[in-house]
Parts: sequence; structure tokens; C-alpha cells
Amino acid sequence: MEKFELHILGCGSALPTTRHFATSQVLNVRDKLFMIDCGEGCQMQFRRSRLKFSRLNHIFISHLHGDHCFGLLGLISSFGLLGRTADLHIYSPAGLEELLQPMLKFFCDNLPYKVFFHAFETKRPTLIYEDRSLTVTTIPLKHRIACCGFLFAEQPTLNHIIRDMVDFYEIPLYELNRIKSGEDYVTADGTVVPNARLTIPADPPRKYAYCSDTIYRESVIEQIKEVNLLFHEATFAQKEQARARETFHTTAAQAATIAKKANVKQLVIGHFSARYEDESVLLEEAQMVFPETILARENLCITIPL
Amino acid sequence: MEKFELHILGCGSALPTTRHFATSQVLNVRDKLFMIDCGEGCQMQFRRSRLKFSRLNHIFISHLHGDHCFGLLGLISSFGLLGRTADLHIYSPAGLEELLQPMLKFFCDNLPYKVFFHAFETKRPTLIYEDRSLTVTTIPLKHRIACCGFLFAEQPTLNHIIRDMVDFYEIPLYELNRIKSGEDYVTADGTVVPNARLTIPADPPRKYAYCSDTIYRESVIEQIKEVNLLFHEATFAQKEQARARETFHTTAAQAATIAKKANVKQLVIGHFSARYEDESVLLEEAQMVFPETILARENLCITIPL
Repeated sequence: MEKFELHILGCGSALPTTRHFATSQVLNVRDKLFMIDCGEGCQMQFRRSRLKFSRLNHIFISHLHGDHCFGLLGLISSFGLLGRTADLHIYSPAGLEELLQPMLKFFCDNLPYKVFFHAFETKRPTLIYEDRSLTVTTIPLKHRIACCGFLFAEQPTLNHIIRDMVDFYEIPLYELNRIKSGEDYVTADGTVVPNARLTIPADPPRKYAYCSDTIYRESVIEQIKEVNLLFHEATFAQKEQARARETFHTTAAQAATIAKKANVKQLVIGHFSARYEDESVLLEEAQMVFPETILARENLCITIPL
Repeated sequence: MEKFELHILGCGSALPTTRHFATSQVLNVRDKLFMIDCGEGCQMQFRRSRLKFSRLNHIFISHLHGDHCFGLLGLISSFGLLGRTADLHIYSPAGLEELLQPMLKFFCDNLPYKVFFHAFETKRPTLIYEDRSLTVTTIPLKHRIACCGFLFAEQPTLNHIIRDMVDFYEIPLYELNRIKSGEDYVTADGTVVPNARLTIPADPPRKYAYCSDTIYRESVIEQIKEVNLLFHEATFAQKEQARARETFHTTAAQAATIAKKANVKQLVIGHFSARYEDESVLLEEAQMVFPETILARENLCITIPL
């Protein structure tokens, strides 16, 4: 099976704790790595998750708060020391390039590779990345500053050939791609074999949605409907609901409500406030609403099956 | 005994590994904390060493390479979130303030406390900090850019009063400070009691010297003579001696040679290159020259006795 797995590098919020790193994740799609947010220390966590730096070419930054991007300088600098030559692309709300440029110029002078900054607008869902196997679309969120989540969706794939039927009809190799795409097969004597006899339908494209940081916001539901995996921030427990609203964050129960209403397959919650020595209260409150919830933790790897 | 202890927060060099954080240390002098270098992730390591943020008011940056200062933004930002009000002082070679200011302005706007940057010159040993119990003097080093180590020295203290003699001569309380300072005591009948009968000499001031990053450089020896504890970088093993010279770093054996020639009491080596999965080769090479050598490691605490 083609890889589609999420690595949690850090799932704390802004204040440092002994248990959590600041926010960072890596989505592994067929051994291409996509980083989502880049909190302080994420380059070390990247190593601990046994991922390969050379596979990472795209970094998506949700918003310009320090706990989501202070790891960029170290990462860019290390790539330089490692002799990287491949381009690095960083996608974020406007302003990041101007902020980083003076420090990059001083601390990362003469990089052997290029860094490209791509600013995205944050009001409407926007396709910001596409390759043969994946699209990345922004999910507008509502935080204290401009902020977007990201929807990672596999590109639709071709139907699977039923090998026995190919042998039975003695279908030549050069016909197979057409059949995978859904066409019928016409035998030498003119018999039409319908595609449904020759193939089983393609796997439905897998989807991962990342929503952090944000206040409870039902407008995201439509966009993340039935994704295989949803990461939603759950900074606070229900008791701190007022604090969550005030700081434009979400409670665990609210995150679970979003998951339930969007009918997602699995929810992973994170961005935990430093106040929780033990996050089981967050897990319990979320599971009351949406049982298929797990807690993020550092170096957790979640495989998203077909 | 008054505290004088060193906490290692990170002892790796520039490249991230699963074992080491970038360079940062904290010297605890009578519960005042002094940070030395501030690599990425040091705020989390600070927590892990169970130190109190509120006790930290002074940060000393040896040089403007990322692995020695990329933790500053996160630390300054966290102090803001924690509602700090006390001034924070940062001492470094010139240029740091200008580099950090744009990011501080954006990411740490409206801090509830003030950050003061103090640039020091790097050619001559310079007293850059002094309080009742401590002085900090720069130790000019030779690296690829302007760089200084730091000598932390306790202020000389007063002699210890011998309680039994005070009782015997019935010396009034108000005379004690004078006697501690070394004066003789004259009794009511005019007898002079020499100070040596009344006191035992003060403890010799303890000293900690930090030398990183630097090429092997004997000119530091005079300044760090007989310190209680020397931290010296030992990025490479002897086999990589040429690489050490090229990159203006030191080998473990060279660090030990400095320790030996300076007749220090104990040497702790760190700033290990990422290439060493196991640093015992560095320890062995250093101990061949200077047996009183230990390896730095994350969250190690070294108490410096009187």
C-alpha cells in the first residue's frame, strides 16, 4: 500500500513544557514528506521520528505565531550545513518572508539551495500545492491573526485490474492503461467486455485535514467532510471554555463536535495548553462526543489506511 | 554552602541529533540564574532541569551562530506569555539586537517587560557584569566570527568568624563586620587581639570558565588559570584534527591540553559533532591528557564545591 501517514513532531502550545514540543507535523505521502508548521525544536524531533531531511521539500505554515514557525531558522540553517541542493518551498500567510529574510541573510548566508516563500490568502479555500499524487488546499480558520488549516487529499487513482480476467481474455499489455481508466475491452471477434468485469474500483483518495489554531468554527465542516483523519486543536478542557473563546482556541469537546458533524473517520487532538500535566481529561471530554478520538503525542505515527 | 552549579541544557553542535540539543547552559549562583548561549529548544530544557524562569535575568551569547542563539526568540516570547515584568539583559557581540528586533517587534509585540541588549567588544577581556556576589568577564576566543567565552568568578568574601573566640573576648555584635574584613580587635583594656586568632580565611572565590566555540588557543590559559570548572568545546576527535582547524574548532585532546596547562580542577567537554553516536572516544582522548575530564550531557548538573 502507498504510504499515507502522519508523524506528530510536537503537539504542545506556546509555553514550553517538559512533555511537549511546539507544533509541528510531517505527512508522509509515498515517501514525499510535507511539513505542517515548524515550531522550535522540530528539526530534532524530525530526526527522532527517523524521517529523512532529503525527502522534505514543502513546508506549510498555518499562521505567524512563534510556536508554529520559530523552528524554521534552525531547519533552514541545518539544511545548508548538510549541503542540500534541492529547492525548499514554504507556504504561509503573507509576511513570513520579510520577517525571516534579515536573519536568513545573516545566519544562513550562501545557502547551497534556494528557499522559495509562497504567501497564500487566508479568506477562501485555495489550492496551494499539487503534484501527481496529492493536492493541498487551505482551510480558512479563525484565530487572533490570519490562519489557515490544510486539507491534504490524494489524487484519484485508476481502477485495479482483475488479473484473472486479463488472462482469460488474453488482453494485450498496451490495453491495460485504458482499461484502468474505465474503458471497456473489445475482443478480436468484436465482443465488448464491460469494464466492470475487468476491474475493481479505485481506492477512494485518502484525506488528512489539519485545523490549528482556531476558535470553534462550523464553517470548516463542509470542507473536511469524511476525511480519513482530522487533526484539530484542543487547547483547553471544557472548564476553560471561556478562556478558549477569549484566546480564539478550541476545547476538546468542541473539536470532537466538529469531527462528529464532519463525520470524519478518526480525530487526533493536540496543541495542548501547558496547564495539563495529564491530558486524559481532554481525551475523555472528546470521546464523550466522538469516540474515535486519540491524543497526539510526540513522535506518534498514525498510518491512514485505504 | 552557597550554590554555584552548572546546568547543561544542550551540548550538541550545529546539526540536530536525537541525542543532543544545541548549546545552552545555566549557571546557578546563589539562586540567581545566568544563561550561557541559547540554542534552539533551550527553554524546554530549562524546564526539564527544573529551573525557575523568574530567576533568570541575564543571558550571555558567545557568538552569533544560530546554534548558540536561535532559542532566544522562543524564550523571550514565552517570558511575555508568562507575564514577566523584570528586565531581561542580553550580552553578546555587536549585531544581535539589530538582527532580532524586526522579529521581536512582530512576534513579541507588547511584551510586559523590557529586553536590554548589551554589545561587548571581543578583542580584549572585558568585565561585562558585576553584582555583589559575581563578576563576568569575557574570554576572547578565535572562531570563524567574533566570539568570546565567559569567566564567572565569585566576588571575594569575608573571613569566617570563629564563634568561640568572639564569645571568649565578649566582642560586641557591631564589631563583627570589621573583624570579618580582616581588622584586629582591641579589648576594653587595650589588648590587641590579632585578626588571625579571631577568624579563619574566607573561602577562595569559585570560578567557572566557558570556552566555546574556538580553535585551540593557548592565549586563554592565563585567564582561566586554576578555575574550579572549565567547559571547553571538543567538537572533534583527534582523527578529525584537520577538520577542527579548518572549522575553527577544538579536538577533545586539545581541550584537555588547555585544561592541563591552565591547571584547572575539572574539565567538562561538549559541543559534540553530530558524527559521534557515542562520545566515549572524545572522553578517552581527553582523559589521556587530563584525567579530571567528564562529558557534558543534557540536564547534567555539576556542583562546584568550595
